Amino acid sequence: MRCEIVAIGTELLLGTVVDTNSSWIGEQLALAGIDNLFQVKVGDNFGRMESTIRQALERSDAVICCGGLGPTQDDITREVIAKVMGVELRRDQAIADEIRRRFKIRGRTMSANNLRQADIPVGARPIPQMPGTAPGLVCPIGEKVIYAVPGVPREMKEMVLGTVIPDLAKRSGQAAVIRSRTIRTWGLSESGIDEMLTERMAELDKLGNPTIAFNASGIEGIKVRVTAKCPDEETALRVLDNEERIIRSILTDAVFGLDDESMELVVLNMLDKRGMTVAAAEPVTGGILASRMSAIDTEFRTFRGAIVSPDLIPRSGPGIAGEVRAADLAKKVADLNQTDVGLACIAPDGTEGQPPGTVFLGLSIRGAAQGERVVLPGNRAMMREYAVINLLNFLRKSLAA
Amino acid sequence: MRCEIVAIGTELLLGTVVDTNSSWIGEQLALAGIDNLFQVKVGDNFGRMESTIRQALERSDAVICCGGLGPTQDDITREVIAKVMGVELRRDQAIADEIRRRFKIRGRTMSANNLRQADIPVGARPIPQMPGTAPGLVCPIGEKVIYAVPGVPREMKEMVLGTVIPDLAKRSGQAAVIRSRTIRTWGLSESGIDEMLTERMAELDKLGNPTIAFNASGIEGIKVRVTAKCPDEETALRVLDNEERIIRSILTDAVFGLDDESMELVVLNMLDKRGMTVAAAEPVTGGILASRMSAIDTEFRTFRGAIVSPDLIPRSGPGIAGEVRAADLAKKVADLNQTDVGLACIAPDGTEGQPPGTVFLGLSIRGAAQGERVVLPGNRAMMREYAVINLLNFLRKSLAA
Repeated sequence: MRCEIVAIGTELLLGTVVDTNSSWIGEQLALAGIDNLFQVKVGDNFGRMESTIRQALERSDAVICCGGLGPTQDDITREVIAKVMGVELRRDQAIADEIRRRFKIRGRTMSANNLRQADIPVGARPIPQMPGTAPGLVCPIGEKVIYAVPGVPREMKEMVLGTVIPDLAKRSGQAAVIRSRTIRTWGLSESGIDEMLTERMAELDKLGNPTIAFNASGIEGIKVRVTAKCPDEETALRVLDNEERIIRSILTDAVFGLDDESMELVVLNMLDKRGMTVAAAEPVTGGILASRMSAIDTEFRTFRGAIVSPDLIPRSGPGIAGEVRAADLAKKVADLNQTDVGLACIAPDGTEGQPPGTVFLGLSIRGAAQGERVVLPGNRAMMREYAVINLLNFLRKSLAA
Repeated sequence: MRCEIVAIGTELLLGTVVDTNSSWIGEQLALAGIDNLFQVKVGDNFGRMESTIRQALERSDAVICCGGLGPTQDDITREVIAKVMGVELRRDQAIADEIRRRFKIRGRTMSANNLRQADIPVGARPIPQMPGTAPGLVCPIGEKVIYAVPGVPREMKEMVLGTVIPDLAKRSGQAAVIRSRTIRTWGLSESGIDEMLTERMAELDKLGNPTIAFNASGIEGIKVRVTAKCPDEETALRVLDNEERIIRSILTDAVFGLDDESMELVVLNMLDKRGMTVAAAEPVTGGILASRMSAIDTEFRTFRGAIVSPDLIPRSGPGIAGEVRAADLAKKVADLNQTDVGLACIAPDGTEGQPPGTVFLGLSIRGAAQGERVVLPGNRAMMREYAVINLLNFLRKSLAA
């Protein structure tokens, strides 16, 4: 089963908008075991769109067209697909009513243009997911198929996951339901995880289902993705639950979360569950930890804040080891902010002769403070990001212990 | 003159890496007045790469191939281009020596594989810019041309700006030198800038050179790009200097910087020049301002830090207007940090009945404090980013006044 992606929009060629949609769809296709050999970007031009879609349909079994479904005169994906199908456009009254209804709900005036979005090629069917006002389309052509989805990422994603991928799976004669789960880890190397999972992967190779793939995502850690192909949703979830349990038992506390859970979200949830609050001293990380925590905890209920100013941060005397100074500072920042937990990251004090990238992490939980020395890779910007995630991971592991 | 972009690499199709290279090259082509009608992503596969490049060469005058120039067996762009050109690969001894030299300088051991990078199609010439170990190539085919550049963004950019765009300009019979400058603004709307520049743009339309384009880039502000096509570098720079002067005289203090200058860089430079230091209170912006300032001023020499914790921030009594509270806080945070300048952003106190998105900005310069009320668009994450840039812009305008 081969599926090609055609991203439509002159703004993509001009570089005004980076085409992240195709990358995302490519990832979903790979996850679902569907081959994607080409991705093409083309401007809002009838002739070039037509030839691009025709070529894609020739060399692949399915084509996903992304973009050009809006209400303006530029948006001609519907027209081009109708031409390729050799059919007319016809107004779908149910969709037209739905579009009217949505404008009404949002209290916005609908211009007549918007009803163009209800004009669909004869033989096409609308995609049931419709998070915006642009309906997506499934357009069969003989044994093959063209999908049309909007360029708005949120709308596109809902349609691709809800209809396109399942439809492709069905067409490819695969099991009806494909579900995946990402198990997120921190602290292990990709080759380390590979080694630890070798045996399990060999077993899965024999079973054929589920499958496992890795993805090293820098400061997001290494992701282990489990994909299950099953006859129904319930079975798929059971397979994923079981595999997650097995992988957790192998990778133990390197696993910090699932899917879109960030390290800071996981840590905030753990603190909430324990009724604990936290504050940080950020003379090295410069406010990055605070900005990430407060992006989630916008009311500063659990994350009570941070002190970034080096001059406002209590200093330990000279000659004290970095780990001890970091632990002290963590305790002091917790005291100052009256929180249960204090976090701190400091640099070597210049007398320690440490290799570049060395920082000391301090953690204080209800008065019990500890320090840790880490050597971080990359340039200064990278190093700061790594320091933040290491510091949060230090807290996570201590809370979980 | 039409130029097509072919991005090479299976990782691009799988979504492991987002193809930002094509977007960037597309932008440069647009700036240089060269049409780019298609961008294609293809995996590391000989047959598919060959057919993609052949098709691109058929429908365009030039093709930029990006990626696949590395030393591993996957990297077959050189071989594919030789096939399309109908020639052999031959080792270029000068390049081979250069590659050896670079490894030696960096103290790295060179594997034999790396010399594959010196094998270039007969008739091709290496691109003189070579920031890494992969040489780029200019490969003429009759009247047309294929350029090969590495997928590493930094290396690619240097080659595209240094050789590809000038070579394309020469081939298109355009003037030899194309140079552009981005004038960065904050505080005006795109339509506002459009209106203010209408007259000047009409004049330039008649002159034909330089040209002006806009680009609204969210929290980066609205960018006005001036592009000059001239017989030589010196003339181009003179044209750009002159146009910059004219645009600055029209947009006045909405202009905050040029090219890659961020708002925080501009503000830090202004403070440095005046021998002033700054600190911030971030109960709303949550450390974003601090993380951006300290990313540049890593030693906290000018930006002395921030307090994020709402509980550690001095409060004004109830019933005091938001602007006054923000100004007070700015003064207090400067006092606490012993800085010349204090910045603060606070939320309405709940009794003020303000519309969503309202925040108060406070600025204190050597004891003289002022406050400002702004209503910011977007969701909370956007709002925080806009608050930071508005706060920095508040300071910038006060310093410039």
